[in-house]
Amino acid sequence: MERRKFIYNTAITAAASTLPLKGKWPSSQNEKLKVAIIGTGMRGQGHLDLLLRRDDCEVAAICDINEKMINRSKEIVKKHNATNPVIYDKGPEDYLRLLEKEDIDAVIIATPWRWHVPMAIASLKKNVYTGLEVSGAGSLDECWELVRASQASDGHLYFLENVCFRRDVMAVLNMVRQDMFGEIIHMECGYQHDLRGVKFNDGITPYNSGVEFGEKGYSEASWRTEHSVHRNGDLYPTHGIGPVSQYVNINRGNRITHLTSMASKSRGLHNYIVDHEKGGADHPNAKVEFALGDKVTTMLRTASGETIVLHHDTNLPRPYSLAFRVQGTKGIWMRDNQSIHIEGISASHRWEDAQPYLDKYDHPLWKKYEKRAVGAGHGGMDFFLIHSFVEHAKAGKNPPFDAYDAATWMAITPLSEMSIQKGSSSISMPDFTEGKWMDSKVTFALDDSY
Amino acid sequence: MERRKFIYNTAITAAASTLPLKGKWPSSQNEKLKVAIIGTGMRGQGHLDLLLRRDDCEVAAICDINEKMINRSKEIVKKHNATNPVIYDKGPEDYLRLLEKEDIDAVIIATPWRWHVPMAIASLKKNVYTGLEVSGAGSLDECWELVRASQASDGHLYFLENVCFRRDVMAVLNMVRQDMFGEIIHMECGYQHDLRGVKFNDGITPYNSGVEFGEKGYSEASWRTEHSVHRNGDLYPTHGIGPVSQYVNINRGNRITHLTSMASKSRGLHNYIVDHEKGGADHPNAKVEFALGDKVTTMLRTASGETIVLHHDTNLPRPYSLAFRVQGTKGIWMRDNQSIHIEGISASHRWEDAQPYLDKYDHPLWKKYEKRAVGAGHGGMDFFLIHSFVEHAKAGKNPPFDAYDAATWMAITPLSEMSIQKGSSSISMPDFTEGKWMDSKVTFALDDSY
Repeated sequence: MERRKFIYNTAITAAASTLPLKGKWPSSQNEKLKVAIIGTGMRGQGHLDLLLRRDDCEVAAICDINEKMINRSKEIVKKHNATNPVIYDKGPEDYLRLLEKEDIDAVIIATPWRWHVPMAIASLKKNVYTGLEVSGAGSLDECWELVRASQASDGHLYFLENVCFRRDVMAVLNMVRQDMFGEIIHMECGYQHDLRGVKFNDGITPYNSGVEFGEKGYSEASWRTEHSVHRNGDLYPTHGIGPVSQYVNINRGNRITHLTSMASKSRGLHNYIVDHEKGGADHPNAKVEFALGDKVTTMLRTASGETIVLHHDTNLPRPYSLAFRVQGTKGIWMRDNQSIHIEGISASHRWEDAQPYLDKYDHPLWKKYEKRAVGAGHGGMDFFLIHSFVEHAKAGKNPPFDAYDAATWMAITPLSEMSIQKGSSSISMPDFTEGKWMDSKVTFALDDSY
Repeated sequence: MERRKFIYNTAITAAASTLPLKGKWPSSQNEKLKVAIIGTGMRGQGHLDLLLRRDDCEVAAICDINEKMINRSKEIVKKHNATNPVIYDKGPEDYLRLLEKEDIDAVIIATPWRWHVPMAIASLKKNVYTGLEVSGAGSLDECWELVRASQASDGHLYFLENVCFRRDVMAVLNMVRQDMFGEIIHMECGYQHDLRGVKFNDGITPYNSGVEFGEKGYSEASWRTEHSVHRNGDLYPTHGIGPVSQYVNINRGNRITHLTSMASKSRGLHNYIVDHEKGGADHPNAKVEFALGDKVTTMLRTASGETIVLHHDTNLPRPYSLAFRVQGTKGIWMRDNQSIHIEGISASHRWEDAQPYLDKYDHPLWKKYEKRAVGAGHGGMDFFLIHSFVEHAKAGKNPPFDAYDAATWMAITPLSEMSIQKGSSSISMPDFTEGKWMDSKVTFALDDSY
C-alpha cells in the first residue's frame, strides 16, 4: 500500500481545492499507473484497450461475472502483449476481494448501473483513484452516499462522462469561453438513440439479434432493459447534461435548482417485440408492460437563470442525436441542423454552416492529441476521457467531473421519475455541494494538457 | 339583416355538430360575401388584399384607430378598383358601431391582442361569421367567455391560425393520416422568431428602425411590446400548437390535459436597447425591466398520451424556426434539419432529405390551389387561410378551428404564466368542450375543397 499512500499523501489537503498537485507521480519515470477494471463488458473492454495503448499504464486486475467477457478481455490483453491481469470472477461481490488484495492506484468501474455507486464507494474507501462510468442514479440517497464517500476519502471520484470530450462539444466550449454566444440563456441536449436493438437480442450476440432480455439476454440486454420495464424517467441523462454543464459552470459558480419531467405513452418496446421476426404477439415478452415512456422530456433551471431542455428517446426508430443547442445573447449553435448564427457575423436571421466555426475554434486539446485519438471509441473522444483520467490519477488531482457532478447529473433520473409520478410537478435539485458551488472554480480543459 | 339571417338560419342546429350545411350560400350566384375588417394594421391589410383578390367577396367596412393604417388600406382598395368600404375610425369602441350599422356576413378581427376576445364576442352576438386573428389569451376567464359567446350565438368563430395551412405542415398531416409515422408519440413546435426589430422601432417605420415602443412606437411596437414588459409566459403559442393539434386531433377525440412552463432570464430586449445606435445605456428605455424570459419552454401532455414541447423564443438573435418535430412509432420528421426517417424505408439509424416526401405527400388542397396562392402572405399559406374562411362563411359551416380550439390554444399563455409563477408547477388545461371532445369529429382539410 506504500506507493498508493505516497501518491495520495497530500491529496487530503487538496480535496476541497482545485489546485493541481505537482510532482507526486510518477515516483519513478519507469513506474506505471496500476489500474484495475471492474466490469469488463463491451464498455470495460474499450477502456482496457485504451489503457493498454498507453505506456504509462498497467492493467493489474480485471473483474467480471461473465466468462465470455473475461475471455474477450484476455484477447485484448494478448493483442497488446501486455502482462496478464489478475482475474476476479468469483461472483458479483468479488470486486471487494480485488480492492482488498490488489495494490492499485486507480480503478475503472464499468458495470451495470445498479452496481455503480456501491462499487465506487468501496473503491473510495480504499483510497483508490476511482473512475466511474456514467448512468442515472437508483435513488437520491445513493447520490448523497457517493458524495459522503468522496468527502470521507482521500481518493478521488472521476465521473467518466466521455461526451464532454466530443470534438464539437469542446470547440463550442472554446467558443462559449471566448464569449462568441454572449451570455448563455438556453440549452438543449439529451440522449436520443434507438436502443431497441440493444435492449433486446438473442442472448448470444449483443446487437439487433432478437427480442430477449434479462436472464435470456446478453450484454446490456441482460440488465439495462429491466430499467425500461420498471422505471419511467430520464434513465440516461449524463451525455446531455454533462457537456452543457460545462457551458454554464454547474457546481462551479452555478447550480441546477429544479426540474420538471414529462413522459409520453410507451409503445416502442412492445411493438418491437411484436413486429420482430423472432418475436410476435404470442412471444412471452409481448406480455411485458414497459413503464418507460417512449419520449421523456425534462426541463431544468439554473441559479444563474439559464434553462435546459433534456431529451430521452431510446424506444423509437430514429437517427442518433444528442440534440445539442447552445443559445446566448449573441448567437446560437444547433447540432441537428449543423448550423450556427452569430450576431454581427452571420447574415441577419440566417443560419451558417457550423463546421468552419468548429474548425476555427477546435479545442487545443484536440489539436494536440488528434493523432493519438485515431481509432479510439466514439469518434476519438474516449481517448481524451481515458487520457484525462490517467493524467489526473497520476497527478492525484481533483477530477474535472467529481462526486458533486456525478451526484447532480445522476440525480436527474430519480428526480425525473418523481416529477412524472406527480404529474410533471416541479422538483428541487438538492445542492450536493452544500454551498461549495458558490466559490468552486472551473478546472475542465483550461489548456491543452489533459 | 335579412340576408345574414338567411345564411345562418340553420346554423343554430349545426352549432354542436361537425356536419356541413349545404347550399345555404350564395343565395344568388352574383351575390358576394360581405366582409368587414376590424383592425387594418399590417396584418389586416394583408387580409384585405387577399379578400379583394377574390370575386366572391366584398369588403363593406373597415375599422381602425390609426389614420396612417386606414390610408394604407384605402390604397389597397384603390389598387383593386374595389368599392370603397365604409370607414370606422372614431376611436377604439367604433367597432361596436360598425357591427350595429353594417349588414355584413363576416368579420375579420386583426387588432392588438387585448382586443381580440371582446371584439369576437361582440361580433358573435351579432351572429356574424367571425374570423379571429391568433394570439395568446389575457386570462383563462376570457377563454371561457369566448366559448360561451360562441355557444350562445348562431354565428361561428373561425380562429385564423394560418400555419395549419403551411405546405410542409399539410404534407405531414397527409402523411400522419396515411399512418407513415405510426402512432404519434411526441411532437415539438413553437414560435422562434427574433422580434427585436418588431418590438422596437422609430415610431415611423415598422421594422428595425429604432428602440421605441408603446406610445412612441409604431405598428406592433405600439402594443405588442408591453406584453414583454409585463408578462412572463408563452405569449404566442398558436403557430406551434395549432398545427400539431391537427396531427393528434386535439378537441376531436383527444385533448390537452396539463402543461408545465419554464422561463430563462431576460436579457435580449434590454441588450438590444443598450446596443442599438439609436439607443444606449442612457436611453430611457434602458431602464425598462422586461418580465418576459428570453426563452420560454412549455411541455404539454394529451389525454391520448402524446407529449408536446412548445418553444417561445423572440428576444435573441436567431434564424426563424417554428421547430416542428413529429415523431411516432414508425418514424420522425424534423423541420430544423429538413429531414425524415421512416422505419423500413429509410436506412437504419439514418436521416433522409424530407423534401421528396413532402412533394410526394403534398396535400390535395395545395395541389389544387397552388397557382392561386402565389404571392399570398407567408409563402402562400395566407391564401388558403382566407380561402377556407370565406368558403366556410359562405356555406355557414362550422370552422375547422373553432371557439374550443381558440380557447384551448390561447389558454396556453395564461397557464404558462401561472406555471412559471409557481416555479414550473404542473397546471391543468380546462376542458373547454366540457366533454364534447370525446365524440367531436375532425373536419380540417379532409379533401381538396377548402
